[in-house]
Amino acid sequence: MRHGGFNQRPKSVRSEKIYIYGKHALMEALTNAPHAIKKVFLSAEVSASEPELRQLIKKRQLEAALLKTREIDHMVGSETAHQGVIAIADPGALMVEFRTFMETLRPDERTMLVLLDELTDPHNVGAIIRSAAAFGAAGVLIPSHNQAPITGTVVKTSAGMAFRIPLVAIGNVNQAVDALVKEGFRTYGLVMDGSRNVVEEKFDAPSLFIVGNEGAGIRQKTLERCDVKLRIPMDERAESLNASVSAAVVLYQWSVKHPPSKTS
Amino acid sequence: MRHGGFNQRPKSVRSEKIYIYGKHALMEALTNAPHAIKKVFLSAEVSASEPELRQLIKKRQLEAALLKTREIDHMVGSETAHQGVIAIADPGALMVEFRTFMETLRPDERTMLVLLDELTDPHNVGAIIRSAAAFGAAGVLIPSHNQAPITGTVVKTSAGMAFRIPLVAIGNVNQAVDALVKEGFRTYGLVMDGSRNVVEEKFDAPSLFIVGNEGAGIRQKTLERCDVKLRIPMDERAESLNASVSAAVVLYQWSVKHPPSKTS
Repeated sequence: MRHGGFNQRPKSVRSEKIYIYGKHALMEALTNAPHAIKKVFLSAEVSASEPELRQLIKKRQLEAALLKTREIDHMVGSETAHQGVIAIADPGALMVEFRTFMETLRPDERTMLVLLDELTDPHNVGAIIRSAAAFGAAGVLIPSHNQAPITGTVVKTSAGMAFRIPLVAIGNVNQAVDALVKEGFRTYGLVMDGSRNVVEEKFDAPSLFIVGNEGAGIRQKTLERCDVKLRIPMDERAESLNASVSAAVVLYQWSVKHPPSKTS
Repeated sequence: MRHGGFNQRPKSVRSEKIYIYGKHALMEALTNAPHAIKKVFLSAEVSASEPELRQLIKKRQLEAALLKTREIDHMVGSETAHQGVIAIADPGALMVEFRTFMETLRPDERTMLVLLDELTDPHNVGAIIRSAAAFGAAGVLIPSHNQAPITGTVVKTSAGMAFRIPLVAIGNVNQAVDALVKEGFRTYGLVMDGSRNVVEEKFDAPSLFIVGNEGAGIRQKTLERCDVKLRIPMDERAESLNASVSAAVVLYQWSVKHPPSKTS
């Protein structure tokens, strides 16, 4: 996955490196996606007080360089809660190609996927990845165009879940939807004026949830591919919900019909 | 509510003015809480292209001053999506005192309140206000200490709902909880290891939902006052949900048991 003559990195990844920051995010990355970590920087304080973290870094055959205060601003900005822990990661190594992902997927009625269609806010992308992992998604599909890519902010907002759940790179949204329909997926669009109340849906087939742009919603050609348009009933004084909140509610409602085996 | 010899503003409001920004937020404010608006600034472009907005401003006996580019940074920062619309508002005028609020509240099993206990992220505060309005809360209780106050970011994240739902200023959290219990409220704490699965709860009494700090959760003395500790079942690979997401899921689940009269 290193860049060279042939760049095998999925097209959805625009930047060649991202900075991940915070102790929790790095621990998650070292545990679940060590191959994506290129370099680790620790402040002198963290280096001295976190033997467990240093050991894990060593175990992954990485080296911890000293994080210098004057470099932080350049790497993640001065406002970021980095906790003296910053790492350089290859976002391409976090992504799996759609074709590869589909080869191992055996969808049944307990299989659920989330597709992000032109979301622009990295906080929403990270929050949806976090909720998708919590409510049992098999993966999150991320298009290569007009969609916020995986960045340090996405990883941080996902609370490390970006390292635990498959992030699937797709080229054309509608082609991916068509391929999933062929595999037996029922497609759900989250729309304000959907005809089906989410609480009434049985979710008795493999489920694909499509989350559209924060303002404009799901694009027409994609909406036409939705078998069911889901609506979250709400009070008349409210006009809408935040994109990551409405996604979480729908994924939660799916999980009510498919309770996790371990609910501790 | 203007500051003077006697400051009648609730103690929870630390700043004397906030900047609200964006056309939607201002329209909401002018429609639902015009008394809170002290001054309006419009860019020359907006002034020329939005006769409806100008008319509403005039109707509220306010004047629109010209928004000068060099003043924007000082007011809301250069990164803010202000859309050429900025207003100065008095956050105190958005808040109602707990005692006043309780005088008119006649709680029944369809009454639901949300209490924020030491949340620090204004985006979470705004998002929870938005979800509370959408799922039918009668008000959001906001303590005066150790809690992110109402700011322009909160108002913006609430998508204007901060102007539509009562924001109730409380002094001491535990005293407010005790007063609500006396009025027949059942108190729900949102905790990771809660004993009650949220989907199993009937919500057949007036409901008070307590949302704790993003990291530390609900404080011990407040947790002891929770009749029910609610848990959202989740996949074993996930450790937690974002505070505003878990609040939204619980409020949604309450609304399933108390569907809004209008679900269009």
